[in-house]
Amino acid sequence: MAQGKNDGLATPDKEAVRAVLDAARAEGRTSLTAPEGKRVADAYGIPVPDEGLAESADEAVQLADRLGFPVVMKIVSPDILHKTDAGGVRVGVSSSAEVRSAYTEIVGNARKYDANANVLGVQVQQMAKPGQEVLVGTVTDPTFGKVVAFGLGGVLVEVLKDVTFRLAPASREDAESMLDGIGASEILKGVRGGDPVDREALTQVITSVSQLAHDFPELVEVDLNPVFASPDGAMAADIRILLSEGQPAERRRYTPEEIRTSMKRLMQPSSVAVIGASNEQGKIGNSVMRNLVDGGFPGEIHPVNPKADEILGRKAYKSVADIPGDVDVAVFAVPAKFVPDTLEAVGAKGIPNAVLIPSGFAETGEVELQDKIVAIGEKHGVRLLGPNIYGYYSTWHDLCATFCTPYDVKGGVALTSQSGGIGMAILGFARSTSTGVSAIVGLGNKSDLDEDDLLTYFADDPNTKCIAMHLEDLKDGRAFVEAARATVPKKPVVVLKAGRTSAGAKAAGSHTGALAGDDAVYDDVLRQAGVIRAPGLNEMLEYARALPVLPTPQGDNTVIITGAGGSGVLLSDAIVDNGMSLMEIPPDLDEAFRAFIPPFGAAGNPVDITGGEPPSTYEATIRLGLEDPRIHSLVLGYWHTIVTPPMVFAELTARVVAEAREKGIEKPVVASLAGDTEVEEASQYLFERGVVAYPYTTEKPVAVLGAKYRWARAAGLLR
Amino acid sequence: MAQGKNDGLATPDKEAVRAVLDAARAEGRTSLTAPEGKRVADAYGIPVPDEGLAESADEAVQLADRLGFPVVMKIVSPDILHKTDAGGVRVGVSSSAEVRSAYTEIVGNARKYDANANVLGVQVQQMAKPGQEVLVGTVTDPTFGKVVAFGLGGVLVEVLKDVTFRLAPASREDAESMLDGIGASEILKGVRGGDPVDREALTQVITSVSQLAHDFPELVEVDLNPVFASPDGAMAADIRILLSEGQPAERRRYTPEEIRTSMKRLMQPSSVAVIGASNEQGKIGNSVMRNLVDGGFPGEIHPVNPKADEILGRKAYKSVADIPGDVDVAVFAVPAKFVPDTLEAVGAKGIPNAVLIPSGFAETGEVELQDKIVAIGEKHGVRLLGPNIYGYYSTWHDLCATFCTPYDVKGGVALTSQSGGIGMAILGFARSTSTGVSAIVGLGNKSDLDEDDLLTYFADDPNTKCIAMHLEDLKDGRAFVEAARATVPKKPVVVLKAGRTSAGAKAAGSHTGALAGDDAVYDDVLRQAGVIRAPGLNEMLEYARALPVLPTPQGDNTVIITGAGGSGVLLSDAIVDNGMSLMEIPPDLDEAFRAFIPPFGAAGNPVDITGGEPPSTYEATIRLGLEDPRIHSLVLGYWHTIVTPPMVFAELTARVVAEAREKGIEKPVVASLAGDTEVEEASQYLFERGVVAYPYTTEKPVAVLGAKYRWARAAGLLR
Repeated sequence: MAQGKNDGLATPDKEAVRAVLDAARAEGRTSLTAPEGKRVADAYGIPVPDEGLAESADEAVQLADRLGFPVVMKIVSPDILHKTDAGGVRVGVSSSAEVRSAYTEIVGNARKYDANANVLGVQVQQMAKPGQEVLVGTVTDPTFGKVVAFGLGGVLVEVLKDVTFRLAPASREDAESMLDGIGASEILKGVRGGDPVDREALTQVITSVSQLAHDFPELVEVDLNPVFASPDGAMAADIRILLSEGQPAERRRYTPEEIRTSMKRLMQPSSVAVIGASNEQGKIGNSVMRNLVDGGFPGEIHPVNPKADEILGRKAYKSVADIPGDVDVAVFAVPAKFVPDTLEAVGAKGIPNAVLIPSGFAETGEVELQDKIVAIGEKHGVRLLGPNIYGYYSTWHDLCATFCTPYDVKGGVALTSQSGGIGMAILGFARSTSTGVSAIVGLGNKSDLDEDDLLTYFADDPNTKCIAMHLEDLKDGRAFVEAARATVPKKPVVVLKAGRTSAGAKAAGSHTGALAGDDAVYDDVLRQAGVIRAPGLNEMLEYARALPVLPTPQGDNTVIITGAGGSGVLLSDAIVDNGMSLMEIPPDLDEAFRAFIPPFGAAGNPVDITGGEPPSTYEATIRLGLEDPRIHSLVLGYWHTIVTPPMVFAELTARVVAEAREKGIEKPVVASLAGDTEVEEASQYLFERGVVAYPYTTEKPVAVLGAKYRWARAAGLLR
Repeated sequence: MAQGKNDGLATPDKEAVRAVLDAARAEGRTSLTAPEGKRVADAYGIPVPDEGLAESADEAVQLADRLGFPVVMKIVSPDILHKTDAGGVRVGVSSSAEVRSAYTEIVGNARKYDANANVLGVQVQQMAKPGQEVLVGTVTDPTFGKVVAFGLGGVLVEVLKDVTFRLAPASREDAESMLDGIGASEILKGVRGGDPVDREALTQVITSVSQLAHDFPELVEVDLNPVFASPDGAMAADIRILLSEGQPAERRRYTPEEIRTSMKRLMQPSSVAVIGASNEQGKIGNSVMRNLVDGGFPGEIHPVNPKADEILGRKAYKSVADIPGDVDVAVFAVPAKFVPDTLEAVGAKGIPNAVLIPSGFAETGEVELQDKIVAIGEKHGVRLLGPNIYGYYSTWHDLCATFCTPYDVKGGVALTSQSGGIGMAILGFARSTSTGVSAIVGLGNKSDLDEDDLLTYFADDPNTKCIAMHLEDLKDGRAFVEAARATVPKKPVVVLKAGRTSAGAKAAGSHTGALAGDDAVYDDVLRQAGVIRAPGLNEMLEYARALPVLPTPQGDNTVIITGAGGSGVLLSDAIVDNGMSLMEIPPDLDEAFRAFIPPFGAAGNPVDITGGEPPSTYEATIRLGLEDPRIHSLVLGYWHTIVTPPMVFAELTARVVAEAREKGIEKPVVASLAGDTEVEEASQYLFERGVVAYPYTTEKPVAVLGAKYRWARAAGLLR
């Protein structure tokens, strides 16, 4: 058997691990000794060198004879974590005499390093076969729980932070994707005639370690650094394991069915109560009432106000208890201090959803007040949206339960935001661009309902074709990933994660831990969940506007058709930047394009029809691009000329695309319009007809197409 | 003396190099042997191991005895470039006996590898002291000529392309910046307790090699790979030198004074002739005439048309020869085939500038026709703009010499484009945003005038505060860099380089050559020239619009003041993304901010004034930010509320900024406005008053501020 060959233990020996951990716990330790680490590794088929504990120089010599020279020798003491610093490590010890003197030296160094250290002896270990040094480890992320890390070993991983993460337990596929997921991945494939490493062996190390961390949540960190990856195996030189101080608490979780039931009543209510409704202009309770009424909500609207009989022409009630019949949603427009009592009444009435607009909770330091309302909600089974939100819109149900202005352009994107300011930007952008929306939801303090609840609902909502979420943190990263994974095969999920760059690297006890800081884990895990990450607010908004409009590409072949060579170059740059590639045009197709363009135009890709061409040239080439089944998506570069003015281009393009759709040809078409200000109207005209078009930019149309491609790949619709 | 210590030869021995090169040339070789390489290296103080050529096994043993063991032995043959492949290299040869057998083996292997190879013997070489392997080399870039490369050595530089370039000869400062310019630069500083390398020694290797390449342009590639960089020196294991087949041709160059004289007559003409002027609507010659007249050009306008007496009320001439007095510019609006003869007439008349709108030259394959007009221009000293352009605008002189629509918003940015389509996008964007412009110039085929001519003029033009250029290639990269370096201390230069991602890696004879492909050289050299590179078209346009409006920051301390916590987080992300950092607010300043904001607001940075605040809170905190001299730039995050509506925020901010300016306080202030559509008007209002403001984006305002900071650093105005 090759060194370090891992047979992928079908059944890890959990009991053996349990016994090791219990023994360590019994001694009050939160770190394992090297021999204990070896036992844990063996139980999960993680290849570590054969070794033994020597309690004397004689025993060390016997052990080395059995294992074969050269050996590695290391101090064993629960009190000495950094063995090298303590002078407690010797490598390449290659004779009995050397073993004997190394033993004495190591123990002596340890005593000098820490006179009080409990020295158990010296570990004598096989020396791993040389190979590419890599790092495999697991850490406990505050958001996502156990994640497994992989990177090149040694100084490089520290300096370049070239490391990748996946949720534990990692599947075979996850582990394989990690080998390709680092910047220096080519090194594993063998460069300059070097042999490739044994990918199978590495994959098994990753899956085994991640399974171990998953099975024993109390293992806060497991660190294999380095692992020597050779052409015929992989072996960790060392395994380091840290235990948590206590068992991590389990979070409350709802079943998807429970979530769907309450969310459906929230988003499609028949009856809404407004607590704190008011006739007085400028009051939040007045704005909410007006928006519900003016927005044309067809269900019942019940104002609640102890001092009024009628508000905006609707009968007012002293208390929610007085409202006849069932109520689906209670919108709170009262100061924070009145929320607890009113929420009790809402719970007593059996209303399943409370929309808590008021601020003055955790965000202003009133954590106890927030805990109090959460407890009341849990007691009565009332789900809470907020507090500290602008409210929410459910456009297809003509519901504007918000103190902002109404919005009624029905369409395919559901938008959520954790921050009120971002919510207002969403509303303004949507109105300015006539973005078709299915919902806009404020999440605010997320005392209860959060992104995973919303995802669970929107995944099944037939009006929602795309979900875009601004978030600053996730209450439960695992629940989010689960909900995202269930949603992505059905529709794209766009995430703007704010706080990417916060210097969040926590002080951690190992290399792996230090590398998991910043944004690295979020980035890898969100990608693993199939989410499209927007780099900034404007991109999130543009993706949200465009993705529901674009058909899904059926393949990777993108063709640029442009009237401006200059745009063609910039569009090509943008295509590479966005992870797509230009189709290599086969000769017959090249011939077909050439038939329509001047002899000095360039076929190939981009297809450069040249600047002075009439509408018929745009029309013929776009039609060919749509009708040839080998082409899967089109990027158009328009150049404003007198011969083909902007609106002429827009009308012909929209017409040709519509004709193709009637024939059942659905391909994503995006356009960049270069020209005088008429190109703005032309872009809007095209957008409204399903061609995602922008003026004065070659980047945005391609970025949006790239986002659609990323989703199609994550959803398994391409290759 | 430490190994490889380089004393920075004051006077390199050029004659010694010349002799080596001449000898190689005399033998018809374009590559140097290792001993020749050693002589060249010695002449420039480039540390390479001591060595000698052995022509027999006995000589090899003698040499090794003199140099000291261990030694490296390498085949010497002009016919064997890849010595390792030929079995022609042995390292660590450590005794006389080993030297003897290695000699026989190496020569035998060489004969087996290539029976016809001319084997001169075996080089016996000192073995370099181990150290960090790095690569130093020079290549001949088609655009920039000699450039020097630096990166980590070995597999890493190939896989990660972690390499950086500078123009040769590199100054000491350039060389030092290269050590910090690679991703893995920390490794050179010593990590995990390792010793730092000798930066001084490495710097000298870089400057010496780059000087060598500069002094001898016929050295197409010089490759030191690896160089062993240790704590007390640096030594190349090997030097590889390739000669060019012939001497590269020198380009024609103009002096800055010549350029300024002709450019001034182009941009500030007193008299313009329009060749091909027409009364017929739809003709280019009609559009140009109308734009000149309608644009209010105050100088003389002379239509030239053999078939008309008067065009748009101006007397027409049969030929340019008939125009009375001096003419500064002849605008051509005739088909390509008529250009040569007409250009002869323009030359004969002594007109210094021809603006060649017609297409039908090199861009349609008519290279000869273009060469012909270039020759005519050179003969008469007529400078050519174009051909294949939309013309140009010089707004402060009310000159619209173009067939597009007039544009008259005078301001501080000069824009140029190589492509007509991009030119039209510039015009449309400028009009849509009321961007203040000093000039818009089409460069088209750049048969003569190009970016460096324009830079030379705009650098001194008092109306131009910023220059933004779209380019696809540079005719003469060196001339561009020279012009940019002369301009950048005066005003920012923004460049959109299209064709970034084209798979341009050329087949090259060495590692350094292969690494210089793609966009790497452009990127490093443009940065070295102090140019601000725009990642895409839209960014170029936004930088162009905003940079002339923003005052120059006097220091690095940026403070965010925001009404929306959510915007604050995204603005912080953007600040890090754009290479700036948030000021650490000292306690007294923190105290001063806290006095204005609610107790649950957050001082620190961002200063979060919270959402419900009245105009007075925005006003007080912005004023404090402007007046405290420790703060150098402000980023504002506005959140639309009823208490402080968008236009109220815009007016108070513009007023506070204007008041500060009256007191002599000039700081860049940018703003992100989150809210309903009124924030669009508010942003435009602010922009017109010197506050760079955008709706629905937290990235753009910060990206623009970041561009201003990049320029201020490049211009030496910060630190």
